[in-house]
Amino acid sequence: MTNAALAELVTELPEGTVVTDPDILASYRQDRAADPNAGMPLAVVRPHRTEEVQAVMRWASANKVPVVPRGAGTGLSGGATAIDGGLVLSTEKMRDISVDTVTRTAVVQPGLLNAEVKKAVAEHGLWYPPDPSSFEICSIGGNIATNAGGLCCVKYGVTTDYVLGLQVVLADGTAVRLGGPRLKDVAGLSLTKLFVGSEGTLGVVTEVTLRLLPPQNSPCTVVATFDSVEAAANAVVTITGKIRPSMLEFMDSVAINAVEDKLKMGLDRNAAAMMVAASDDRGAAGADDTEFMARVFSEAGATEVFSTSDPDEGEAFVAARRFAIPAVEAKGSLLLEDVGVPLPALADLVSGVEKIAAQREVMISVIAHAGDGNTHPLIVFDPADEAMTARAQLAFGEIMELAVGLGGTITGEHGVGRLKRPWLANQIGPDAMELNHRIKRALDPDNILNPGAAI
Amino acid sequence: MTNAALAELVTELPEGTVVTDPDILASYRQDRAADPNAGMPLAVVRPHRTEEVQAVMRWASANKVPVVPRGAGTGLSGGATAIDGGLVLSTEKMRDISVDTVTRTAVVQPGLLNAEVKKAVAEHGLWYPPDPSSFEICSIGGNIATNAGGLCCVKYGVTTDYVLGLQVVLADGTAVRLGGPRLKDVAGLSLTKLFVGSEGTLGVVTEVTLRLLPPQNSPCTVVATFDSVEAAANAVVTITGKIRPSMLEFMDSVAINAVEDKLKMGLDRNAAAMMVAASDDRGAAGADDTEFMARVFSEAGATEVFSTSDPDEGEAFVAARRFAIPAVEAKGSLLLEDVGVPLPALADLVSGVEKIAAQREVMISVIAHAGDGNTHPLIVFDPADEAMTARAQLAFGEIMELAVGLGGTITGEHGVGRLKRPWLANQIGPDAMELNHRIKRALDPDNILNPGAAI
Repeated sequence: MTNAALAELVTELPEGTVVTDPDILASYRQDRAADPNAGMPLAVVRPHRTEEVQAVMRWASANKVPVVPRGAGTGLSGGATAIDGGLVLSTEKMRDISVDTVTRTAVVQPGLLNAEVKKAVAEHGLWYPPDPSSFEICSIGGNIATNAGGLCCVKYGVTTDYVLGLQVVLADGTAVRLGGPRLKDVAGLSLTKLFVGSEGTLGVVTEVTLRLLPPQNSPCTVVATFDSVEAAANAVVTITGKIRPSMLEFMDSVAINAVEDKLKMGLDRNAAAMMVAASDDRGAAGADDTEFMARVFSEAGATEVFSTSDPDEGEAFVAARRFAIPAVEAKGSLLLEDVGVPLPALADLVSGVEKIAAQREVMISVIAHAGDGNTHPLIVFDPADEAMTARAQLAFGEIMELAVGLGGTITGEHGVGRLKRPWLANQIGPDAMELNHRIKRALDPDNILNPGAAI
Repeated sequence: MTNAALAELVTELPEGTVVTDPDILASYRQDRAADPNAGMPLAVVRPHRTEEVQAVMRWASANKVPVVPRGAGTGLSGGATAIDGGLVLSTEKMRDISVDTVTRTAVVQPGLLNAEVKKAVAEHGLWYPPDPSSFEICSIGGNIATNAGGLCCVKYGVTTDYVLGLQVVLADGTAVRLGGPRLKDVAGLSLTKLFVGSEGTLGVVTEVTLRLLPPQNSPCTVVATFDSVEAAANAVVTITGKIRPSMLEFMDSVAINAVEDKLKMGLDRNAAAMMVAASDDRGAAGADDTEFMARVFSEAGATEVFSTSDPDEGEAFVAARRFAIPAVEAKGSLLLEDVGVPLPALADLVSGVEKIAAQREVMISVIAHAGDGNTHPLIVFDPADEAMTARAQLAFGEIMELAVGLGGTITGEHGVGRLKRPWLANQIGPDAMELNHRIKRALDPDNILNPGAAI
């Protein structure tokens, strides 16, 4: 790579698209994973249109320069960590959306935030369900890159369930349309699904066709506290075997106390676990579900159970659950885990995490999308304390090993990125790893798309 | 290929696994697409276990013998058409199932029929939603190969939405596990999703982990007849923009009359279209939905509207809809189409098909999973009449071209197989075709897995 080569790219793109100001470059080195091994990019490129992304990829291919696609930079696994001498391709300027109420689809560029998509479609009386906790700050392109989940997944599924079509730019600059506004379409291989969750390693998504639903019904909510995690976990299994709650969230004692420190809602500081559950089945059915869940919680040994059909009252508890991450973050820096297990192993996972916390002498709070078996152990550490930082990193790996040992996954919804890659082979095994690499080599033979990430 | 080589395979497998009896071979030449260009296989192999499938694929790879994977042989696109000198690998003997009520999953071998899976999980109080019209005779492995749909897709999605994990045997005989009983898992590329719908071109599925739901609620049903297809199509768009029906099916005048000929239910023989719609929202909500749909039908100009919350009465109309294919089949041989369009183009598709029927002088009946825009034009012809057969085949292609021209797909749920392959590139374009082929070459470099099918 020479400066002359970069100058060539600059002339190909609208003024201001290629940024080399060192201060700006520095702000694109890391995502929210704050990868300490982040490199210094050659340039940040902020294209506005698919054609500009094509120009970037053609240039990168010709010059064998690695490209790290980046959404809003809210990733928690280091999927957008910059590479020394590479490009960061930020999709932040690609923000168009058009909503079609008749086909119930939206065509969206990747730079729009999840919350902006939700808002734009709600203005047309429609609903885009996926709701990562970070929905106000994460981009739809990043959601697609990681196949992001959220709180409503337990009933409504994850991002891939709402992606009908994509336009992607491949490593060599070819733009390909996959799928489209057809609710059922099995023509050719399921390539749309392959690109969802590929963390920028197979192509750059420049346009998405999203499936939308009629608006969600106002939910009924039930909140319960427990003096043991096992009791809460047992209730989860009983509930999901019988009904389809629209939310089934878990917070442990550390999270409850961290939230209570900040919000002073009167949460039970002595509880070992708190569940926030909801049903959005309509009318009496939703109330019946809430009553059923309240009964299951009581029979499982809940110390307190509170139900409400008032949306604002319910939302206060959901907000408390959403606030758990910032509340725990107030205690120190976070390593944010994302391990998942089959539902019956949920209590074992939580107790295993407690043991790791005790052994490594770090605070770990567990919050979970319990209905999906997807947990977020939050490892709290002081980055100024080198020994503690090292212990936190050990705990980070041990939690993944624990999850895999319980038949689980190292990542339920955040992606593998760079931080979790050393643990991937341990979960999926050498044959599946080789299959991943075969696909990668077929689509990106020079390995210029997000090398070192995901697979 | 020599007989000596085949003898080697015979000795590697349990007695009776490799079949060379000419009469039996003949019965495995075609699936329900009755491809006139079907070849005569060298042998039919009916393995019982993954290890036996591995032995078959290792042998086939070593000897460069093409392998056509086959489920129950009910495919409608010729995905299981035999190849001269190749193997047919039938999964019919692989019939194990185990249901886990706690994780709400079933681990199933591919040879089990869809109806058998439904029944086995229902015995544990659970529900496997995908319901192709052929559910009593099609295999779960075939459903996965084609990403099969059905009547409940409009609310509950298609096969891929219920596949959490797979074991697949690759072309070289390697057995790989992908995914597993985890409701959210983004570790590595979405390979499980890539194999679903790949029609046996990337590997042989030997085990499936299915996601199950709590049982479906008893539906409320509403039936309406119309004197124009447009009126019915308009109602579909109005309904799906507001609520989530659990079924929204369409039959045209030909289908109505064919069903009435056989079942004598008192259907309106003068109607241009009939809709069968249902809601399984619980209690009053389901009844509200039915009332809403009845009102939409009336306002759209329905000539008659009938609602019922009696499950048996509702099921009679669903059975009539399911019976449409055999009823039309009584009029002659069928070429069964599977084209889909974005919802607003539904009426244009149906009227376009009418024009093709008139021009080609063949009877074509249209039935549709209307809520998904997925239609099944049934082209009726007399195979003894060569000229008519040729006209029917012209119509078959013209209907696909019509659908693609309306922004649609050549196949919504049956797969491309061999019959529709000539039209695939026209829909997805050369760049997406090349991407399909890159993946295929990466996974099956010698092209021994179902060559000539799907892509």
